[in-house]
Amino acid sequence: MTHDIAILGASGYTGAELVRLIATHPGMRIKALGANSKAGQSMAEVFPHLRHLDLPDLVTIDEIDFSAIDLCFCALPHATSQEVIASLPKDLKIVDLSADFRLRDPAVYEKWYGNKHAALDCQSEAVYGLTEFYRDEIRSARLVAGTGCNAATGQYALRPLIAGGLIDLDDIIIDLKTGVSGAGRSLKENLLHAELSEGTHAYGVGGTHRHLAEFDQEFSAIAGRPVQVQFTPHLLPANRGILATVYVKGGAAEIHGALSRAYAEEPFLQVLPFGQTPSTRHIRGSNFCHLGVSGDRVPGRAIVIAALDNLTKGSSGQALQNANLMLGENETTGLMLAPVFP
Amino acid sequence: MTHDIAILGASGYTGAELVRLIATHPGMRIKALGANSKAGQSMAEVFPHLRHLDLPDLVTIDEIDFSAIDLCFCALPHATSQEVIASLPKDLKIVDLSADFRLRDPAVYEKWYGNKHAALDCQSEAVYGLTEFYRDEIRSARLVAGTGCNAATGQYALRPLIAGGLIDLDDIIIDLKTGVSGAGRSLKENLLHAELSEGTHAYGVGGTHRHLAEFDQEFSAIAGRPVQVQFTPHLLPANRGILATVYVKGGAAEIHGALSRAYAEEPFLQVLPFGQTPSTRHIRGSNFCHLGVSGDRVPGRAIVIAALDNLTKGSSGQALQNANLMLGENETTGLMLAPVFP
Amino acid sequence: MTHDIAILGASGYTGAELVRLIATHPGMRIKALGANSKAGQSMAEVFPHLRHLDLPDLVTIDEIDFSAIDLCFCALPHATSQEVIASLPKDLKIVDLSADFRLRDPAVYEKWYGNKHAALDCQSEAVYGLTEFYRDEIRSARLVAGTGCNAATGQYALRPLIAGGLIDLDDIIIDLKTGVSGAGRSLKENLLHAELSEGTHAYGVGGTHRHLAEFDQEFSAIAGRPVQVQFTPHLLPANRGILATVYVKGGAAEIHGALSRAYAEEPFLQVLPFGQTPSTRHIRGSNFCHLGVSGDRVPGRAIVIAALDNLTKGSSGQALQNANLMLGENETTGLMLAPVFP
Amino acid sequence: MTHDIAILGASGYTGAELVRLIATHPGMRIKALGANSKAGQSMAEVFPHLRHLDLPDLVTIDEIDFSAIDLCFCALPHATSQEVIASLPKDLKIVDLSADFRLRDPAVYEKWYGNKHAALDCQSEAVYGLTEFYRDEIRSARLVAGTGCNAATGQYALRPLIAGGLIDLDDIIIDLKTGVSGAGRSLKENLLHAELSEGTHAYGVGGTHRHLAEFDQEFSAIAGRPVQVQFTPHLLPANRGILATVYVKGGAAEIHGALSRAYAEEPFLQVLPFGQTPSTRHIRGSNFCHLGVSGDRVPGRAIVIAALDNLTKGSSGQALQNANLMLGENETTGLMLAPVFP
Repeated sequence: MTHDIAILGASGYTGAELVRLIATHPGMRIKALGANSKAGQSMAEVFPHLRHLDLPDLVTIDEIDFSAIDLCFCALPHATSQEVIASLPKDLKIVDLSADFRLRDPAVYEKWYGNKHAALDCQSEAVYGLTEFYRDEIRSARLVAGTGCNAATGQYALRPLIAGGLIDLDDIIIDLKTGVSGAGRSLKENLLHAELSEGTHAYGVGGTHRHLAEFDQEFSAIAGRPVQVQFTPHLLPANRGILATVYVKGGAAEIHGALSRAYAEEPFLQVLPFGQTPSTRHIRGSNFCHLGVSGDRVPGRAIVIAALDNLTKGSSGQALQNANLMLGENETTGLMLAPVFP
Repeated sequence: MTHDIAILGASGYTGAELVRLIATHPGMRIKALGANSKAGQSMAEVFPHLRHLDLPDLVTIDEIDFSAIDLCFCALPHATSQEVIASLPKDLKIVDLSADFRLRDPAVYEKWYGNKHAALDCQSEAVYGLTEFYRDEIRSARLVAGTGCNAATGQYALRPLIAGGLIDLDDIIIDLKTGVSGAGRSLKENLLHAELSEGTHAYGVGGTHRHLAEFDQEFSAIAGRPVQVQFTPHLLPANRGILATVYVKGGAAEIHGALSRAYAEEPFLQVLPFGQTPSTRHIRGSNFCHLGVSGDRVPGRAIVIAALDNLTKGSSGQALQNANLMLGENETTGLMLAPVFP
Repeated sequence: MTHDIAILGASGYTGAELVRLIATHPGMRIKALGANSKAGQSMAEVFPHLRHLDLPDLVTIDEIDFSAIDLCFCALPHATSQEVIASLPKDLKIVDLSADFRLRDPAVYEKWYGNKHAALDCQSEAVYGLTEFYRDEIRSARLVAGTGCNAATGQYALRPLIAGGLIDLDDIIIDLKTGVSGAGRSLKENLLHAELSEGTHAYGVGGTHRHLAEFDQEFSAIAGRPVQVQFTPHLLPANRGILATVYVKGGAAEIHGALSRAYAEEPFLQVLPFGQTPSTRHIRGSNFCHLGVSGDRVPGRAIVIAALDNLTKGSSGQALQNANLMLGENETTGLMLAPVFP
Repeated sequence: MTHDIAILGASGYTGAELVRLIATHPGMRIKALGANSKAGQSMAEVFPHLRHLDLPDLVTIDEIDFSAIDLCFCALPHATSQEVIASLPKDLKIVDLSADFRLRDPAVYEKWYGNKHAALDCQSEAVYGLTEFYRDEIRSARLVAGTGCNAATGQYALRPLIAGGLIDLDDIIIDLKTGVSGAGRSLKENLLHAELSEGTHAYGVGGTHRHLAEFDQEFSAIAGRPVQVQFTPHLLPANRGILATVYVKGGAAEIHGALSRAYAEEPFLQVLPFGQTPSTRHIRGSNFCHLGVSGDRVPGRAIVIAALDNLTKGSSGQALQNANLMLGENETTGLMLAPVFP
């Protein structure tokens, strides 16, 4: 059986990545591509790398007949997404890639995003999209909220450690390096090649990055008490890839054991042998996440490093994995593409 | 039916690319990975991006039982390849990715490569592997010689123009830009990141690059008279991708028409609308080749630009396409992966 | 004696490059930095790499007292520049870095730039700023028009050959590769890191790039007859550097001899030994231009390759070199910085 | 007065960087360039970016007449350096850029570097080369030991905080990102462009990187008790630049105040306004170090970020700064080059 798919926000990077992945998915057919600002253009004009595919032209969201759609990916900007989703048919399966439905508490949403939530009904039914930890809820969900790409990376490194009581909850530092595509295709001076290549810098320093809200929500729920990590993202002169270097206090061997056991059956989460370190180059363009654990010369300290592709496992790959579950497909269909190296 | 495959030279980039592509090929199973210098290691050690795959460990070529192999890819260095292939079973189907069997005339081989050919028997039965132009011969071949990556790019731009008598044969210039992975994984000072990034330079200037031997052989055969193009490759600070900018004397509209007609039914050769120019970014990691044609303000001049990924359409993707034909598989199986952008 | 300098357009890359160079110039003092859109900001805010310098804040052009200025660099966008310069004191020495005063014939200007020239008086007194060929005129000029960066590169390769009658004037091809900073700091989708890195493409193909107007003007004047070159620029994933690969018909040894003689006394133009090829990496951040000449296996053909830094020798370095002449300083003062490699 | 200079190890990146800097130094003249493996070659052959300079050819170290040399820079590999320096005239002023004389305790040296020290006499007189903190000793030293480039970066961020008793000495984490030129020009697979570009990974994880020995020595001396930091370096796809993100427990405002006061008179150490973050792009090719301090939402935590160019302030620039002191020159001569951006 083939499922009919719509993608809203098809002119952005996560939209294009969805098309790339679905192109080799045997059970999905792209019926509509929505992109208000570029409606009327062909996908080949907007993304020439997809020109070999037989795709519908871009249309405005209003033009889409959602009654013919089995599942809709919504890759719109934050805040826009909630308004659009509130207006869609109430029985339409939706995977949202924005930040709009990630936070369960509307007050927390408002605090971090600065506006009142405009679709509280939808928010209350949304399931957090970190597949490996919400698999059953996702399978039966109507609306799944994709996680932040940084938030996914940090959680893969930390959730089993917090759940297992293996680390000091008051001393967790996530130093993260991210490629530039996570910032999207928007025109900002700091995203120009001449500004960004050949160097690095930190941004959102000191507890101001919005993905902290997800860390707080999830880690506190697991721990049963408030947990506040430190988190510093850095922009990397590379297009894809996130590397999170996580500093914790706990036994390195126990930590490696806990991660290995937690992910033993997970098709996409690969725990490296103890002491090995992952590289973003080795997951590029794929849905895999590599995790490494090392001890430190300072006793009782460990370093956990997680690497994934922000556009794949961090957003569009995760979204497809969740859609597979929601549609009764095999979870890994369309997602077993090997990383592109070099 | 599943075909059992061996890859010799599995520790190099083209070997790894073969594994990446075959990983999603439903009709092939990798039975043996040969790499004398790294025998005993696992593929995950040599190429961590392939660690999710269930692959045999690397072995020496001597250790491989070729009687259990349906087709063997040979991704060994030039000169080594001919010696190894001469020693393999005479009924084993082989796709060679080296330069050893590309040139039909042994004297020409010796002139360009500096050594006497050591496997003239094999050479005489080898079929030149430019799929779209040797499809029937490849289908029934035992030994197919993969083309040079630069040679493939230039030929896609020029063969139909020469065949159609559309251009001046004495004034063809191929100015080519290539990513660094074409030079392989060997340790050379000029391939270091610090030497190569952030700039460009020409190499093999003035008619000395070995891929000229292929241009000469093929273009002269098509034209029925000697043809000698000018060819200047440049090294690009990028890992993958070749862009060939080809300057010809002829009518631009006729040229665009000829290419469009010649490739109308080709699944991987995409001719852009007249006046559009391809980019290596839009074929990255894929088996597609994009071709663009523009006129010039100087009447009677045209510019043809071809872009492909040297590791895919330029070598390992081409090899798999040929293997599909040799094994009776659908030609495109395993090769419809969309390019990775950004 | 110290000269007081103003820079208009100080918030762009060529403006910043002027500040970088003048920072180590013993005979110049920056008195005013004009940048209408960022007036009120400090240079450290706009260009943090210049924060160690004691510089005036950015102001609007109207706020500058030009009576206290000895020489004004004008690094404003095309078309804006002519309006501003027309309004400046008529005895103020000016080095303009825009395209506005490069073309002597107003009709040619209008043809290529699409608007009527708004400052014909100034245009008629402007001297073309290719230092090595207009040195005497520049020395006594009031207004010098900086050349296009691509135009400079191609001219260094070709002028002595045309002047010496050494090449076929009807078969000149300039295949050029340029770093991204030449496009400036403007917000365009194709200049984003995610769009531009890791690949290359041609633009302005087929005789449409505006720097052709300079080639036409200069080469025709030297030859005493119309000369129209073919010119294809390509965008390179690097911030700085232009490499022009020039294909000509003529004797390679004679060409190498002619360039060597022409530039024997030039401090910034370095002709490499015959057969060597320059790299943009080896002139990065400097005012040097490296030139190489090779023969081809096709008799009577030669390849001339020129490399320079578009922001230095291609614009701001050239501008400072000209300013030195106009102010009676040593021509090389402030410009002998060695290239930054790696 | 002009000082005559020798550089040993002139065929490496730090050797070339010394030549680049000395090229604009009015008080130094390069008399000898030693490089055993490339003796007989010209500097233009080994480093074409320096071809405009009038430099002596490379010679073996034995060929150099050190009686004519006022100061010798020694940019040789670790372990080699101590043997060479032991054989040089005992009154020759030397700035060593290797690790051989950084550690005062021979047992500590042996522990981290794995071999017995071969020049204990020299070691005992060596002064640690972190200019701003050892200025007086350097001024009168005969042998100065340049610091590790990572070690310099971390110390600029931390020394005033430890000295001021402002931070918890048991919870210091240095997460560092470094460009690739710090690894030198040696042929290693992981330094190839195809392996290193477009991604990042950690190395020397868990307390194994040798620069920790310098941190231990210096921080413990300042604190008057053992201090062991955590330190994780990451390789960045950029040629130059180090960014150290340092996590400490202490008052952010006090920390910013302490750094600002400590470096108020330092020409090369620039403390940014509170809350601003430095970028490696803004110190590229220069001797400047930018430092930023931010608070965290977790009370009592602060983040200090330091950026410098590993080849300049991290090695060759530091070496020249020290040589200036040793020769009675102005400390900043030859070092005020502004960073190259973009």
